[in-house]
Amino acid sequence: LTGSDGRPPGTGPTRIAVDLLGGDDAPAVVVDGALQACDADPNLQLLLVGSRPAVDECLRAAGPVAARLAVTTVERGVGMAGPAADGADPRTSIGACLQALKAGRVDAVVSAGASGPTVAAAVVAVGRLRGVRRPALAAVLPSLAGPLVLLDVGANMQVKVADLVHHAALGAAYARLVAGVRAPRIGLLSVGAEPGKGDRLRRGADSALRSWAGPERTYVGPVEGHDVVLGERANVVVSDGFTGNALLKGVEAAFAVMARRHPTDGVPRAAALLGVAGTVVVCHGAATAPDIASGLGLAARLVREDVVARLAAAASGSVPVEPYEPVVEPLDEVAP
Amino acid sequence: LTGSDGRPPGTGPTRIAVDLLGGDDAPAVVVDGALQACDADPNLQLLLVGSRPAVDECLRAAGPVAARLAVTTVERGVGMAGPAADGADPRTSIGACLQALKAGRVDAVVSAGASGPTVAAAVVAVGRLRGVRRPALAAVLPSLAGPLVLLDVGANMQVKVADLVHHAALGAAYARLVAGVRAPRIGLLSVGAEPGKGDRLRRGADSALRSWAGPERTYVGPVEGHDVVLGERANVVVSDGFTGNALLKGVEAAFAVMARRHPTDGVPRAAALLGVAGTVVVCHGAATAPDIASGLGLAARLVREDVVARLAAAASGSVPVEPYEPVVEPLDEVAP
Repeated sequence: LTGSDGRPPGTGPTRIAVDLLGGDDAPAVVVDGALQACDADPNLQLLLVGSRPAVDECLRAAGPVAARLAVTTVERGVGMAGPAADGADPRTSIGACLQALKAGRVDAVVSAGASGPTVAAAVVAVGRLRGVRRPALAAVLPSLAGPLVLLDVGANMQVKVADLVHHAALGAAYARLVAGVRAPRIGLLSVGAEPGKGDRLRRGADSALRSWAGPERTYVGPVEGHDVVLGERANVVVSDGFTGNALLKGVEAAFAVMARRHPTDGVPRAAALLGVAGTVVVCHGAATAPDIASGLGLAARLVREDVVARLAAAASGSVPVEPYEPVVEPLDEVAP
Repeated sequence: LTGSDGRPPGTGPTRIAVDLLGGDDAPAVVVDGALQACDADPNLQLLLVGSRPAVDECLRAAGPVAARLAVTTVERGVGMAGPAADGADPRTSIGACLQALKAGRVDAVVSAGASGPTVAAAVVAVGRLRGVRRPALAAVLPSLAGPLVLLDVGANMQVKVADLVHHAALGAAYARLVAGVRAPRIGLLSVGAEPGKGDRLRRGADSALRSWAGPERTYVGPVEGHDVVLGERANVVVSDGFTGNALLKGVEAAFAVMARRHPTDGVPRAAALLGVAGTVVVCHGAATAPDIASGLGLAARLVREDVVARLAAAASGSVPVEPYEPVVEPLDEVAP
């Protein structure tokens, strides 16, 4: 199995396109975060994608790491309120990032821009993994009992039962590959721990996940908001993207408010887009420079450990096969 | 305006029916909480509703407060996985509690049982306030910027745009009357702060809330999960009950995990059911004895300050009118 440019994964520099125009405080904090990531990781090469002034700002500030920076200039970013289709426009920063990923000029993409356009652009540019109808954004939370994967945290506002099962498979594989979870226990986010709880979607998904579960995939049943913090019942929690997004932001803020220290030491401050045939990492719109650097670190790690190919195998429900085959087809409906 | 038995509100003892059989650790913690509440408040009289052994346990432990306890024995509680219609059965503890409220034998009901049956029973027994299609459970959170009302936290798994507007009105009135919020600023929970964010429900509700807003009712637009913790943008946050429930439980758990002290000192550890024509307070299934006592304290306060009648006025969109008229009609669909 080889990387997108023929190199075996995990060797040589890791090349990441970074969207300088994405995020509430772009480009300043993205530039800072990009340079922090380069300082921390000598094997990182960045493709800076942004407006001419943003790119120039980054190059001026780069100092000795400038040798590891390449640039692509674009007309504009994608507004937080912009249409999802904006992401597929190569004149936007996220569109250009994903074109570079598609062309094999980079190994991964990191953006703190609006997640809807990023997801839409990723699906159009690199396609979905076989067996996945809707990619999901996965976050790792520092629960009391250890790392916990929560997905979807914002790629899909509405999902179907089958999507939640796909996401359970992706989330369990991601927990094993990235979060250091040896035995993923999957829970379905709901309003009570009993099978009858929740809405029609949750009752259907509970039943489907019980059928899907097996010796290698433990389904523990419905879990509640506090279980994402405690982590005892499940270490992979599957949710629609609306609820997952609200829960993630609320829990992160509560940790941040209560802690003197950084709330998620050692846990990536960014979400990985699971289910597309390429490495795409999404940071918060309100990401700080260390958050951006954390997102870049996560992207580099996903590339080096060849996570997408291994997820492809997990998503198709089989033992690892190689190479993975992207399924490039437009989404029937694009998540906002 | 008079209490349900002809007394003016706020005078004489406050009589609350407590569901001894509701909650994960019932009856033990409910008994403890009930007695703690009586110790703390000499004007409290409790109607203990439970099985013979549960009632006897409470009476044995009561000591000098036994004179302020009355009892109703019932066959059974409502299981957490039980059907919502169970709540309307007077042979269940919650059903008997609400029958007592309907008959004017108590001023309020407190239960830590499954909220679905409680809501259904409340609607059937005492009816809804005029102008409210679906009652909502409201919680008060201790945000950084002060008390914040989050609703719905579990009464309705699915809502319509009009419900979210009703809940905005109820939540704003509740924030003023109970949470000490002088100028309620209402936010709509979504996945981003821009009007186009979220799903179809949220886009429709954003538009409807903008039309509904006026000088006395400030709508700030969509807010995010972290805004429930920070409280700067809004101090009333409106959500569907599924997402609100997950968010509340996650934030509360994060506070509890990070804090040495009790996470919500000074904030009621129970949700008020807004929109029914009677005082009903719902505690967590996992409530501790102090949580139950806090729920009883909240119920007593709601009764003494005549909150239901004042909410009725707010919900109908008019200046206070009296008396309020319950609209007793079955719900078209009962929330689980």
